[in-house]
Amino acid sequence: MGKSLTKRSEDYSKWYNELVVKADLAENSSVRGCMVIKPYGYAIWEKIQAELDRRFKETGHQNAYFPLLVPKSMFEAEEKNAEGFAKECAIVTHYRLKTDEDQAGKLKVDENAKLEEELIIRPTSEAIIWNTFKNWIQSYRDLPLKINQWANVMRWEMRTRLFLRTAEFLWQEGHTAHETKEEALEEAKLMNSIYANFVENYMAIPVIKGVKTESERFAGADETYCIEALMQDGKALQAGTSHFLGQNFAKAFDVKYTSKEGKQDFVWATSWGVSTRLMGALIMTHSDDHGLVLPPKLAPFQVVIVPIFKNEEQFKQVSKKATEIKTELQNKGISVKFDNRDTHKPGWKFAQYELQGVPLRIAIGPKDLEKGTVELARRDTLTKEFIQESELSQTIIQSLENIQDNLFNKALSFRDSHITEVDSYDEFKEILETKGGFVSAHWDGTAETEEKIKSETKATIRCIPDNACKNDGNCIVTGEPSQQRVLFAKAY
Amino acid sequence: MGKSLTKRSEDYSKWYNELVVKADLAENSSVRGCMVIKPYGYAIWEKIQAELDRRFKETGHQNAYFPLLVPKSMFEAEEKNAEGFAKECAIVTHYRLKTDEDQAGKLKVDENAKLEEELIIRPTSEAIIWNTFKNWIQSYRDLPLKINQWANVMRWEMRTRLFLRTAEFLWQEGHTAHETKEEALEEAKLMNSIYANFVENYMAIPVIKGVKTESERFAGADETYCIEALMQDGKALQAGTSHFLGQNFAKAFDVKYTSKEGKQDFVWATSWGVSTRLMGALIMTHSDDHGLVLPPKLAPFQVVIVPIFKNEEQFKQVSKKATEIKTELQNKGISVKFDNRDTHKPGWKFAQYELQGVPLRIAIGPKDLEKGTVELARRDTLTKEFIQESELSQTIIQSLENIQDNLFNKALSFRDSHITEVDSYDEFKEILETKGGFVSAHWDGTAETEEKIKSETKATIRCIPDNACKNDGNCIVTGEPSQQRVLFAKAY
Repeated sequence: MGKSLTKRSEDYSKWYNELVVKADLAENSSVRGCMVIKPYGYAIWEKIQAELDRRFKETGHQNAYFPLLVPKSMFEAEEKNAEGFAKECAIVTHYRLKTDEDQAGKLKVDENAKLEEELIIRPTSEAIIWNTFKNWIQSYRDLPLKINQWANVMRWEMRTRLFLRTAEFLWQEGHTAHETKEEALEEAKLMNSIYANFVENYMAIPVIKGVKTESERFAGADETYCIEALMQDGKALQAGTSHFLGQNFAKAFDVKYTSKEGKQDFVWATSWGVSTRLMGALIMTHSDDHGLVLPPKLAPFQVVIVPIFKNEEQFKQVSKKATEIKTELQNKGISVKFDNRDTHKPGWKFAQYELQGVPLRIAIGPKDLEKGTVELARRDTLTKEFIQESELSQTIIQSLENIQDNLFNKALSFRDSHITEVDSYDEFKEILETKGGFVSAHWDGTAETEEKIKSETKATIRCIPDNACKNDGNCIVTGEPSQQRVLFAKAY
Repeated sequence: MGKSLTKRSEDYSKWYNELVVKADLAENSSVRGCMVIKPYGYAIWEKIQAELDRRFKETGHQNAYFPLLVPKSMFEAEEKNAEGFAKECAIVTHYRLKTDEDQAGKLKVDENAKLEEELIIRPTSEAIIWNTFKNWIQSYRDLPLKINQWANVMRWEMRTRLFLRTAEFLWQEGHTAHETKEEALEEAKLMNSIYANFVENYMAIPVIKGVKTESERFAGADETYCIEALMQDGKALQAGTSHFLGQNFAKAFDVKYTSKEGKQDFVWATSWGVSTRLMGALIMTHSDDHGLVLPPKLAPFQVVIVPIFKNEEQFKQVSKKATEIKTELQNKGISVKFDNRDTHKPGWKFAQYELQGVPLRIAIGPKDLEKGTVELARRDTLTKEFIQESELSQTIIQSLENIQDNLFNKALSFRDSHITEVDSYDEFKEILETKGGFVSAHWDGTAETEEKIKSETKATIRCIPDNACKNDGNCIVTGEPSQQRVLFAKAY
């Protein structure tokens, strides 16, 4: 059936690429670096969106929509401000136009015409949004301004991988303006906490909250807060970032407000975002050699019912029972798919839903009808048991909760067993080579040392963790004094 | 306060442009022809999206996401098929790239590099989607394939107007593939009915369902079903279209399936879409010289509470009551905003919410507290009354239903009084000049006559209505026999 996957231990990267395609999550398109997000993958993304959107609104943010294209000059105004914030971009230089006199169905197309000013497909929207905020903000009455946008963005990447790094991707980008530095800082931290809470409680992915070093900051930010997750291959993945932008963008785009006291000042800003990259994190945290494993809170359907039958009469009886069960479960808020297709055999369906990570699978055949049982299979543990029909919905509710917790705990225990404290550079390099994961080490706080480590080992400082204890020590490279360990890792 | 609008009778077009901006729905951006959809406008669009999305899913459609950019060759394959389906497009010719060796924060930017093949920003996604469907469809087991996409698209328009015609706009595009012609036809009609039902019941806009003439069809379609609405200035607006595409795209992109009997055949297709243009229809159907008027089902908040107070003590007491009312109404499923800002006076708030079309406004002051009443103002009729607090939630529930119905009925009666049957070309021209609206007339069925009428009067055939009675007559231009009247109008 062409469904068997490369094993993770053989080739993790190949396993990932195959899984994304075979589980019907996404595929490469004929446009270099751009993906097609398939219905099953998109349904997971919709669940991520819905819950994040709810949390954004709950904390007073409003959605809006800004143009896809940014004039080059505006983009460069931002670039200048951000001191070398260079990006990989697609550039629109020409357009085609129908001539006015032409009629529907009989259009003539002009030769491509050159634009007066080149337009950039947004790689991020700070420029266009701050250029707009300038007109929206006059006085303290207009603040805080807390805007979010769900959009597609484009970065011209050389090497792309489905979800992890694609030329076009989907994301949300929050952009806020505040009266005071304190308020903006609080907002940036709040959004990082919202991300952390969502990723842990919905995606069942444990994350480390922290702050980036200056070299790893978003260009244009005064501080970048982040959440870092650990994948099964020991590489870290940045799952979300939230930036305190100071007054940098306000100054670049001249966004001032008049305070209650009549004083003029630049506003303080934040921006924050997560993207379809989260899909990559989800896949690489939980899935196994059999395919995708999904936390119940994000599964497009939490339970699938597969009927077992040999003839039309059996199909009718089994279907009747399956439909009853489906209705009962739906009434308890559980999402259920009853796969009653007669075009595919039960074995094919079992393999398919295993590959697609459906948390629970119910199989019902004529024998079950006699006994008043069903077979319940659990995707995360690959275990099966027969359940009395009368206990089914209670068992399912408990199992779903249990799967959600189990996935988180399993990932947490893997993550925690892959944080290694080291006190020498040799040990540091050895751990990176052998075990991987996060390496917790003292660092002298200089960009030079950070850069040396990166060029020699490919490990970067993922973050200075929020909850790290003060702990005196010496930089593993220079021996200079350091008061706190930071987390290094190779990363996606 | 700069809030007063040009009157509709003075300059309808100016009234519209002012209203869109002043009611905080959208504004022009600094990118030619591209709009910024502001939070209040976007909140309405989100409500439109949510309800349509629910209806699409209920009828078995799944969302997916396809690339923004289409290779020129693929686009032209489609164009060729569609015989002159020329579009106004933005063309990506270049990209910028960071060189691999550069480091974060110290990037060098290559000079713009030229793409090997030009890429078009999608004006619609048939090409890329059918190129993808080719790999998704092998057998009858893969059919029907019913996909929808929510996306931004771009058409390089010369003259743009907020919502009605913008270079970039948001829309949904459904694309389906079927085994048989009958099934595809049924799907195309079903989606047109879903649009009609949504637009009438949610947007309170009466529409005429019908089918386009060959000249007005979507290029590449064998049949285009549509819904046509009438704006207050007597011009028609096409609110949605659903196309039966026959096997045209299947042939252009070689999409075949193997039937149960083992036979190979091309699949049958539909596509259908509505866009942010619906926002324009919503505004122009219901709004008045005071500003926006919103049907309760699409209002971002249905009720606004404005407190009246002169000092801190009064504010406390009024706020307590307002919060109680807000909670009570929310518990009944009504969306409520309590505007407790002390930075704006009640008069300013009244004007603002009137301009923004909030269906109901509650004002509460110290006198109301004494009497146990509130003042309830209704946006559509601009009437006010005092309501006993004990009757408030019941009154509000009834009023919201009443407003929804009233808006629809008012628009229906305007629309119906602007359908004029004519039997001569002179009368036809006179009605178009004086009264506007739909003109119902006999037509000989030829593209020549249709074109003559269009070039002489600017009126097009909006549709051949679904429910028209057979009725023998003669073409108003050529006198040739005709068996059914069709609807002409000048249109947006």
